Amino acid sequence: YVVLCAGLDVCFVGVPLDAGTSNRSGTRFGPRQIRSESCIIRHVNNATGAQPFDSIQVADVGDVWMNIYNLPEACKNIKDGFTKLMSTGCKTLAVGGDHTITWPILQAVKEKYGPVGLVHIDAHADTNEGLLGAPVNHGAPFRHAAVEGCLDCKRVVQIGLRGTGYAIEDYEWGKKQGFRIVQAHECWHKSLAPLMEEVREMMGDGPVYISFDIDGIDPAFAPGTGTPEIAGLTPIQALEIIRGCRGLNIVGGDLVEVSPPYDTTGNTALLAANLLFEMLCVFPGVKYADV
Amino acid sequence: YVVLCAGLDVCFVGVPLDAGTSNRSGTRFGPRQIRSESCIIRHVNNATGAQPFDSIQVADVGDVWMNIYNLPEACKNIKDGFTKLMSTGCKTLAVGGDHTITWPILQAVKEKYGPVGLVHIDAHADTNEGLLGAPVNHGAPFRHAAVEGCLDCKRVVQIGLRGTGYAIEDYEWGKKQGFRIVQAHECWHKSLAPLMEEVREMMGDGPVYISFDIDGIDPAFAPGTGTPEIAGLTPIQALEIIRGCRGLNIVGGDLVEVSPPYDTTGNTALLAANLLFEMLCVFPGVKYADV
Amino acid sequence: YVVLCAGLDVCFVGVPLDAGTSNRSGTRFGPRQIRSESCIIRHVNNATGAQPFDSIQVADVGDVWMNIYNLPEACKNIKDGFTKLMSTGCKTLAVGGDHTITWPILQAVKEKYGPVGLVHIDAHADTNEGLLGAPVNHGAPFRHAAVEGCLDCKRVVQIGLRGTGYAIEDYEWGKKQGFRIVQAHECWHKSLAPLMEEVREMMGDGPVYISFDIDGIDPAFAPGTGTPEIAGLTPIQALEIIRGCRGLNIVGGDLVEVSPPYDTTGNTALLAANLLFEMLCVFPGVKYADV
Amino acid sequence: YVVLCAGLDVCFVGVPLDAGTSNRSGTRFGPRQIRSESCIIRHVNNATGAQPFDSIQVADVGDVWMNIYNLPEACKNIKDGFTKLMSTGCKTLAVGGDHTITWPILQAVKEKYGPVGLVHIDAHADTNEGLLGAPVNHGAPFRHAAVEGCLDCKRVVQIGLRGTGYAIEDYEWGKKQGFRIVQAHECWHKSLAPLMEEVREMMGDGPVYISFDIDGIDPAFAPGTGTPEIAGLTPIQALEIIRGCRGLNIVGGDLVEVSPPYDTTGNTALLAANLLFEMLCVFPGVKYADV
Amino acid sequence: YVVLCAGLDVCFVGVPLDAGTSNRSGTRFGPRQIRSESCIIRHVNNATGAQPFDSIQVADVGDVWMNIYNLPEACKNIKDGFTKLMSTGCKTLAVGGDHTITWPILQAVKEKYGPVGLVHIDAHADTNEGLLGAPVNHGAPFRHAAVEGCLDCKRVVQIGLRGTGYAIEDYEWGKKQGFRIVQAHECWHKSLAPLMEEVREMMGDGPVYISFDIDGIDPAFAPGTGTPEIAGLTPIQALEIIRGCRGLNIVGGDLVEVSPPYDTTGNTALLAANLLFEMLCVFPGVKYADV
Amino acid sequence: YVVLCAGLDVCFVGVPLDAGTSNRSGTRFGPRQIRSESCIIRHVNNATGAQPFDSIQVADVGDVWMNIYNLPEACKNIKDGFTKLMSTGCKTLAVGGDHTITWPILQAVKEKYGPVGLVHIDAHADTNEGLLGAPVNHGAPFRHAAVEGCLDCKRVVQIGLRGTGYAIEDYEWGKKQGFRIVQAHECWHKSLAPLMEEVREMMGDGPVYISFDIDGIDPAFAPGTGTPEIAGLTPIQALEIIRGCRGLNIVGGDLVEVSPPYDTTGNTALLAANLLFEMLCVFPGVKYADV
Repeated sequence: YVVLCAGLDVCFVGVPLDAGTSNRSGTRFGPRQIRSESCIIRHVNNATGAQPFDSIQVADVGDVWMNIYNLPEACKNIKDGFTKLMSTGCKTLAVGGDHTITWPILQAVKEKYGPVGLVHIDAHADTNEGLLGAPVNHGAPFRHAAVEGCLDCKRVVQIGLRGTGYAIEDYEWGKKQGFRIVQAHECWHKSLAPLMEEVREMMGDGPVYISFDIDGIDPAFAPGTGTPEIAGLTPIQALEIIRGCRGLNIVGGDLVEVSPPYDTTGNTALLAANLLFEMLCVFPGVKYADV
Repeated sequence: YVVLCAGLDVCFVGVPLDAGTSNRSGTRFGPRQIRSESCIIRHVNNATGAQPFDSIQVADVGDVWMNIYNLPEACKNIKDGFTKLMSTGCKTLAVGGDHTITWPILQAVKEKYGPVGLVHIDAHADTNEGLLGAPVNHGAPFRHAAVEGCLDCKRVVQIGLRGTGYAIEDYEWGKKQGFRIVQAHECWHKSLAPLMEEVREMMGDGPVYISFDIDGIDPAFAPGTGTPEIAGLTPIQALEIIRGCRGLNIVGGDLVEVSPPYDTTGNTALLAANLLFEMLCVFPGVKYADV
Repeated sequence: YVVLCAGLDVCFVGVPLDAGTSNRSGTRFGPRQIRSESCIIRHVNNATGAQPFDSIQVADVGDVWMNIYNLPEACKNIKDGFTKLMSTGCKTLAVGGDHTITWPILQAVKEKYGPVGLVHIDAHADTNEGLLGAPVNHGAPFRHAAVEGCLDCKRVVQIGLRGTGYAIEDYEWGKKQGFRIVQAHECWHKSLAPLMEEVREMMGDGPVYISFDIDGIDPAFAPGTGTPEIAGLTPIQALEIIRGCRGLNIVGGDLVEVSPPYDTTGNTALLAANLLFEMLCVFPGVKYADV
Repeated sequence: YVVLCAGLDVCFVGVPLDAGTSNRSGTRFGPRQIRSESCIIRHVNNATGAQPFDSIQVADVGDVWMNIYNLPEACKNIKDGFTKLMSTGCKTLAVGGDHTITWPILQAVKEKYGPVGLVHIDAHADTNEGLLGAPVNHGAPFRHAAVEGCLDCKRVVQIGLRGTGYAIEDYEWGKKQGFRIVQAHECWHKSLAPLMEEVREMMGDGPVYISFDIDGIDPAFAPGTGTPEIAGLTPIQALEIIRGCRGLNIVGGDLVEVSPPYDTTGNTALLAANLLFEMLCVFPGVKYADV
Repeated sequence: YVVLCAGLDVCFVGVPLDAGTSNRSGTRFGPRQIRSESCIIRHVNNATGAQPFDSIQVADVGDVWMNIYNLPEACKNIKDGFTKLMSTGCKTLAVGGDHTITWPILQAVKEKYGPVGLVHIDAHADTNEGLLGAPVNHGAPFRHAAVEGCLDCKRVVQIGLRGTGYAIEDYEWGKKQGFRIVQAHECWHKSLAPLMEEVREMMGDGPVYISFDIDGIDPAFAPGTGTPEIAGLTPIQALEIIRGCRGLNIVGGDLVEVSPPYDTTGNTALLAANLLFEMLCVFPGVKYADV
Repeated sequence: YVVLCAGLDVCFVGVPLDAGTSNRSGTRFGPRQIRSESCIIRHVNNATGAQPFDSIQVADVGDVWMNIYNLPEACKNIKDGFTKLMSTGCKTLAVGGDHTITWPILQAVKEKYGPVGLVHIDAHADTNEGLLGAPVNHGAPFRHAAVEGCLDCKRVVQIGLRGTGYAIEDYEWGKKQGFRIVQAHECWHKSLAPLMEEVREMMGDGPVYISFDIDGIDPAFAPGTGTPEIAGLTPIQALEIIRGCRGLNIVGGDLVEVSPPYDTTGNTALLAANLLFEMLCVFPGVKYADV
């Protein structure tokens, strides 16, 4: 790993895990499919002028090793893998895999950068205590991360939450930690550029991690995912969020929950590839041309 | 049937008919697929605070019996089935099946509740005299229902109509009966909350039936249907319509025209399951938590 | 050809070519699939009152002949075919096929009508010098057309451009010719009716050609295409653009880049069939009822 | 109709009906899909030397008209349509649609040719008294045809029957009429050429009708059908059966039960197109080259 | 569980687990999909005369509870669940789920019946020591079962093994235990009825368990599975194997590895439903009519 | 290229071309999809004992460069690329791409090895003079190769030919050159091991090239291809053919015509990956364990 990342500013790394999934599985092939569809991502960002590949050193370093047959152990493997990747100073853009992976990644991030602010786009808060009696799964990463001090809870924003819930208190736990929650219906029919002004203010200069669950986006645009919820964000709003992170002190990010078996046209993976490119564009050090 | 509904306030009932379909068939498997996808519908409505399962007695009572090889006879079977289901005071949420089924259901509704107001979401007015010389099919239910006095025509609103037509007078028949028609292009780029204020006023305290044809929604969000029309409503607008019915005297409803063979990802059925849950949330007697 | 078009005002003509495609192929079956799905296009336009089939003579004249194994030669075949079709005064609505076809069509248009104004809806500018060293392909038609004088460059508008680019100067060449470029992000969250007022002014009374690449529309609505780009136009905006062309001196048009193998539900072809109907509705001579 | 068939020896005619289907619907698009896939059927039969298009006059005359919303009436429409088609002496190759259609076609055949011998390939005997209380549907055509005297019951062979049954007596009714039943497991692991020798003997010089239900073939080869049954015939055996009919006095035939929504690759329709071509090759009057 | 099984001879029970899968996931929805497609399984076996539902008491008792986020724990849950189901004397037909489940089921079987003979149909021996360092997964159940004494190793036959291997010794471990291994290429081009005569002799009167991995069958017939291997058994041979078990002292069975996301037509689930019916037909106590 | 192949005995090389396709396109993604599905190809051949990766040096060297927008030029590019790859003594296993590619590959083979014997598995003879007036396309490679002296025509065997033809003389041209043609119907119901004994005799010690068009195999097993023909070979027979080449002086091979858009389950690519592995196993120098 260390060799792989030598001299890199940012690396893409696949985490092909779906053992933490609650409904439809298949995210284990997310990294493979997103790589395939990334073949039409070109060099520059015509809308913003960002030129990431002319500014910083970037590479895809392959997949992290893990024991996919034992979820708690896989989490340890992921944490170890990311710790090594980050040890050279390289920042990571993880390609999931289900959302379970963000917990061990944030453990590694904390060791390197301390507690981080979080821009979290998702249909679900993912702050359950557990599911079916198991503490570790894709519905719980931010609970564990917050409890373990990986998050600077006053600098956490969750955008796009919606859908039916297990209990009317589903979002309360996060609010008590200080999370700002922006439900999907607060985003309907409007640009999220104003929201991102507030988010930038909230984040300040501290380190920030972006966790993008593709199910934050409406299933019309992102059908290939395991727990889709109706009436979600649009790709337009997703771009407003990510582009709105420009200038923040981004220390890492992930794009999770793309499930290729349910992505019948490949377009969810294509969307994910574009979002990952846009996330790359807002990493520190990326230069922008005037447009 | 009577036994099945004893003690229930609202029941879901499948009507797996596609013999009335004009273009792509397949709605006969709508109930089965919607039930499958409903597995991720949870208990409460996080956005509105509705807690239907803690408020009223609800069950899925299976499918109504009918002779699917003889459409006119199937209509009689449906009418008889719903009459029995309603005889205990249980209200019905029908899961289609093609839109033909709403005609016999409204016959049963009329016997129990008299002429009803109608909130009808659809791409098509469904007020043809018939198709190919046949009076009974999925393009005609509201014509028959109106003629037979099942509808309180001054309290009928049709939302989302659009697409090419057989004749320039396609919507005129309904208007003459007093229907309010809100074409899709009148809904573009905006919230339907204001419209629903007017609809609530229009409906008053009288009994109201909700008939939701999934093709009212744009085919990007609801591809799995037989006669899709472009530039339709969004799921966001669908939620605004249904949530806007809160407080009305809802006596029944249906969700029709989901065709699983054309629903390649299952997400049309998932959307339908959510819309049925949202319809359940606005039935009289459902309690709301503060949110 | 001449016999086929005798007495026609407008003809639909298929151009089943995909040899110019850069990413996913399959547009060779675009004409066949669009014809199949056109079976639910009815006679009149309920929203606008247009009655094309009661106003002008229209027919589908089949496919143009071409050598699909030699792209430069195929372009010659297309130019010859369209020249003959237009020789009777019949205007053409071409059904692609990939966007390469617009170059030879515009050559034929120029011979008949001189340089034309262009309403071009697309995710891509299609003004590359070439790809992989080949000058002729689906990324270059408007470069060749402009250079050859087929376009009245001051009356060219390109709407919906977006996505990653080969270089930060991708759109500059067109701007230098005088093209007006409206990037997709300039269209987000709003109606395009105001834009079309400006476009009508820009076009004046001169001849206008409409070239509609289905990838101008967001892949949620039009998944069945070869180089989809996220965060695009909506079918609503597409209708605003096309209906906004009413009154212009339309001399021809095309709808390209529908790729059936990636159109898993048939709904991209259905969208294309509707857009072609709407384009037909704005040809000179079509009568409108009051609506 | 009469004009359409003037001078033809054999015509293909579509019967897009699926109202008689018991499980998965969708056969209404069988004719359309089979026509699409027939585009790679070429002129001659390389294996047998048959040159049908150089021997007899053949055309596709389109679809028969029928009221698809009333199954009993649709049957009358079909019978009337085929009677007219046959009135010129033209023989018909019907393209279904579900198997219900063979009953009214055989009524028309009887009027023209008297009771016919039958080569029937199918997974099901289709000799039920009815289903769900309805006498007319796709599980009953040969019962009705036999009762009405359309069949010369001593010259009926049913090949490929298999699957679970409603009762242990399912095949008894046919046997009592004199039908020869060849269950699928009698065909396993072997060529059907010897069987066809017996069939040719059985049929003699009398008129023979071929009814080919695509579900006679194993679902691996023909997934796109409504009531697939495992462990069926192979396309190789299908060719042995059809080619084994060479020399018989074929007076008509059909290919039914292709359901495009379940034919995800188009290959069931492609198989059907080939089988129809092979059936055409064994009509009287077709010449064979030496091969 | 005990209540559920009271009075039953055989029960179907779902085990929706895919956490043990090595390649494509998705078997968690196997039980749901197989139940859906089982709707066209009728009452009797026309080929063999078996009338299971008229002979013994059979029911579907739903799914076993398990913690799907912890594979070792899930195995304990499965063992406990099956132990309870069997405690009433009811025999089980498990519907997977991935092949991991057979290990805990065999643990429960051993407690009830002692070491059992095994008829195992599969593309893989599933006798690895483990994968990726994890002992428990779908490549290892029969290794664990043998080591723990659940199997009477001299009465174990594995049919259909094939494909590439990790090492040339892959099948050696089983052979050393006394397993009889019948590789797929030994089955090519022939009936397996003779093999089953030998198997019946081998099994004698002792208790026998049937474990059917759907990937034993060629992917043309069973595409919907996670680790397909080419050149496999046919459904015809599968029927020969299962029907060849008639007369044995069957004490339980399973059908595993159906993965609905890869079963694009539903026909793998349909095949599985038929195989489960056929397995039911060979349980002790089932009566046969003469056919 | 030379660097890539230094020290290699055999390399896999992708040729992502579909510009020569006559019916359904999409083979340009064949190499990508086959690589994806090859992830479950393991190290050894359990059936034959072959251990290729322990015997010879093998690598995947990526794709050959070509101008996909100009078919004649692309052929030159392919010839040049393969010439360079072979210059180090490395043999090539090409992964198509449509069958056009075999012509330029055979040109490069001839330069290195002289005229070669050919084992050609295909549904089509591919010896047309051309199509639509174009000499170069996927229906003509063996005509050109023979005319140019790339083939030792007395040592050419074509296996699996079938389907409808343009003319009764379709296979005559090859026969006149001395090709042995084994039509598919000559292969029905039997093992091809005896045929391969004859083929080995025919090939002797001279250099042999294997060209495997996936459409040689029946579309049930290989649906993902552009010009499928019914009643073809089975994967079992394919293995018999390839394994039957053991001992021959193989100097190169290809696997062509996998079209991922039509390979809805990925299993055609999986079959192709396995066939390529089996072809690798019969290259000179591969060692076999006793099995």
